[in-house]
Amino acid sequence: MIVNGKHYTSIWRNEKKQVFIIDQRILPHEFKIVELKNLSDFCIAIKDMLVRGAPLIGVTAAYGVAVSLLSGQKKNDLEMICSNLLETRPTAVNLFWALEEMKKALLSVNNDDILEQAFKKADEIFEHDIISNKKIGENGLNIIQEILKKKKSNKINILTHCNAGWLATVDWGTATSPIYHAKKKGIDVHVFVDETRPRNQGAQLTAWELSHNNINHDLIVDNAGGHLMQHGEIDMVLVGSDRTTSTGDVCNKIGTYLKALSANDNNIPFYVALPNSTIDWNLKNGLTEIPIEERSHEEVSYVQGLLEGNKIEKVNISLAGTSCRNPAFDVTPSRLVSGLITDYGVYNADENSLKKLKELTE
Amino acid sequence: MIVNGKHYTSIWRNEKKQVFIIDQRILPHEFKIVELKNLSDFCIAIKDMLVRGAPLIGVTAAYGVAVSLLSGQKKNDLEMICSNLLETRPTAVNLFWALEEMKKALLSVNNDDILEQAFKKADEIFEHDIISNKKIGENGLNIIQEILKKKKSNKINILTHCNAGWLATVDWGTATSPIYHAKKKGIDVHVFVDETRPRNQGAQLTAWELSHNNINHDLIVDNAGGHLMQHGEIDMVLVGSDRTTSTGDVCNKIGTYLKALSANDNNIPFYVALPNSTIDWNLKNGLTEIPIEERSHEEVSYVQGLLEGNKIEKVNISLAGTSCRNPAFDVTPSRLVSGLITDYGVYNADENSLKKLKELTE
Repeated sequence: MIVNGKHYTSIWRNEKKQVFIIDQRILPHEFKIVELKNLSDFCIAIKDMLVRGAPLIGVTAAYGVAVSLLSGQKKNDLEMICSNLLETRPTAVNLFWALEEMKKALLSVNNDDILEQAFKKADEIFEHDIISNKKIGENGLNIIQEILKKKKSNKINILTHCNAGWLATVDWGTATSPIYHAKKKGIDVHVFVDETRPRNQGAQLTAWELSHNNINHDLIVDNAGGHLMQHGEIDMVLVGSDRTTSTGDVCNKIGTYLKALSANDNNIPFYVALPNSTIDWNLKNGLTEIPIEERSHEEVSYVQGLLEGNKIEKVNISLAGTSCRNPAFDVTPSRLVSGLITDYGVYNADENSLKKLKELTE
Repeated sequence: MIVNGKHYTSIWRNEKKQVFIIDQRILPHEFKIVELKNLSDFCIAIKDMLVRGAPLIGVTAAYGVAVSLLSGQKKNDLEMICSNLLETRPTAVNLFWALEEMKKALLSVNNDDILEQAFKKADEIFEHDIISNKKIGENGLNIIQEILKKKKSNKINILTHCNAGWLATVDWGTATSPIYHAKKKGIDVHVFVDETRPRNQGAQLTAWELSHNNINHDLIVDNAGGHLMQHGEIDMVLVGSDRTTSTGDVCNKIGTYLKALSANDNNIPFYVALPNSTIDWNLKNGLTEIPIEERSHEEVSYVQGLLEGNKIEKVNISLAGTSCRNPAFDVTPSRLVSGLITDYGVYNADENSLKKLKELTE
């Protein structure tokens, strides 16, 4: 998508096999491009969240394997490389998926070809992500058009949580892809952006990317969505997912469940946009089977932003030493989900409907 | 309650008729006492939220009337004084109530006695608030004990939103009063404190006062409560109210409604603690009849906290110029409220039950 009038993807490589990302920790205040030069760079980039978002983590891990092989490492090192990358974030199923794809592609390749093949496969995963998110956008656009038909209007108000934007993927985004496609169709789209504490990905990333792509939006605190829904100000909730079960339970950024409850209470459609690779076919019960990452308590007690004078700083919002809890994700039970907008079409959030998707993609 | 080992109320006056408050805008980082010397000081203290919380606003306004009369103003000025004070915060019904009480008490008094009578009446409102919150605590303690009996445990986990603590009243607090009373009874109380964006009264005030009064607690982001409820980590939600209708709809800090939905979805009791003066007997439908204050958008885009080096600063969390929305309150429909813990006992959140309270207090 567009930054300062120019097209970017969230990760890219050049012909010299150099891989670049955008340091998402300092957005929206600084737009800084970083080269990832070795396995350690890639692990840090994922763990410290220079890159984040399930699909982008997967693509980054794939290039991480490829770049690691540049430094002379061979097929025998593949397991070590993959296990280092896998340890960086436990919840993202796409990370596991991308590494499995890389292993499958490289295990039968001999050592002389492995480098070329690794970049080829990573490029494929990169391209696949773009196409898949474009399809999500087209499928989501249909849903938006249906809602507008019922509403008899050309203006839609969408609430989104966290950043399931192009910054979380290679391009287009998951939850934002229908939004960008709607805009291209001339639909008057307005987005309510949850700031999404503790890391404020909504305030720092979603609002930033919507702004650079000329989508009208209002930033709100995470507490405000329920009130806006009660007063008819929201037509649709559209979020991404970090992991979805075969039964349609949706694991996503902490707080998603509260918005799903509110959408349900106010008869507002609640859709989840995700590539089919986000579905973990082994899981049946999201609440009991998905381990929830408890992240650093400093994410709760500190908030990062721009001080007057343009310096990025963190301020402590609580008394020093205050005990915190910081679960990073929650699970929205399938009963609260109106539908799953995937790259293969829109599916109900239930086992029978998702079985059809599984058959299609196997 | 206790600050640094010493007992304080949130507002007090001395024999020289000097009125003092705590500047709550810079807590928990600085404990600063401020004297309010004239009508303008009182209006600014309420409007700029040096004092906040429905009950404390009422008591502050009462002393505001008294102190305004110190500067030689007379009975004829009473309407002007009250209307200035009333304009500071539109949602707090206690503000209106306290000013009406002052007017009733002073209209039949002659100019020579008005000053003494004004302080006498303000003192009465001050004392009444303490007694009323003490009673809320005793009544809420019964509810806590009932929950513990069912749970067969001495440990209760309570989630609270915003600050309905002693800082929001004169002493004890509304939602915190049952907590402080439970602690005194030897119950093992643990509180999950919603940080409560945009102003972070949970992080800045509730966590601070719980800490000074030795109540175990964990600070969480507003997004986390639903997840904790899904996993059995919360036994009870206990919040305050800025205004409650005669039918039991509860207007409280933005985000309360989302916690009520989640409590309801997980069969967790959701109680509201409030003095009967918070009930607006003229209102029947909270969603349509209570005007919701839209506060400054800077509250959304900026977060205040402590920088390294102990300087209180605000940081901008979003791109400069980002459009925001900032509704300050929401309404929790009575169907989601397990009960109203008042100074006159615990009532169901419905018109019939509240009629009995009305009869009792008229």
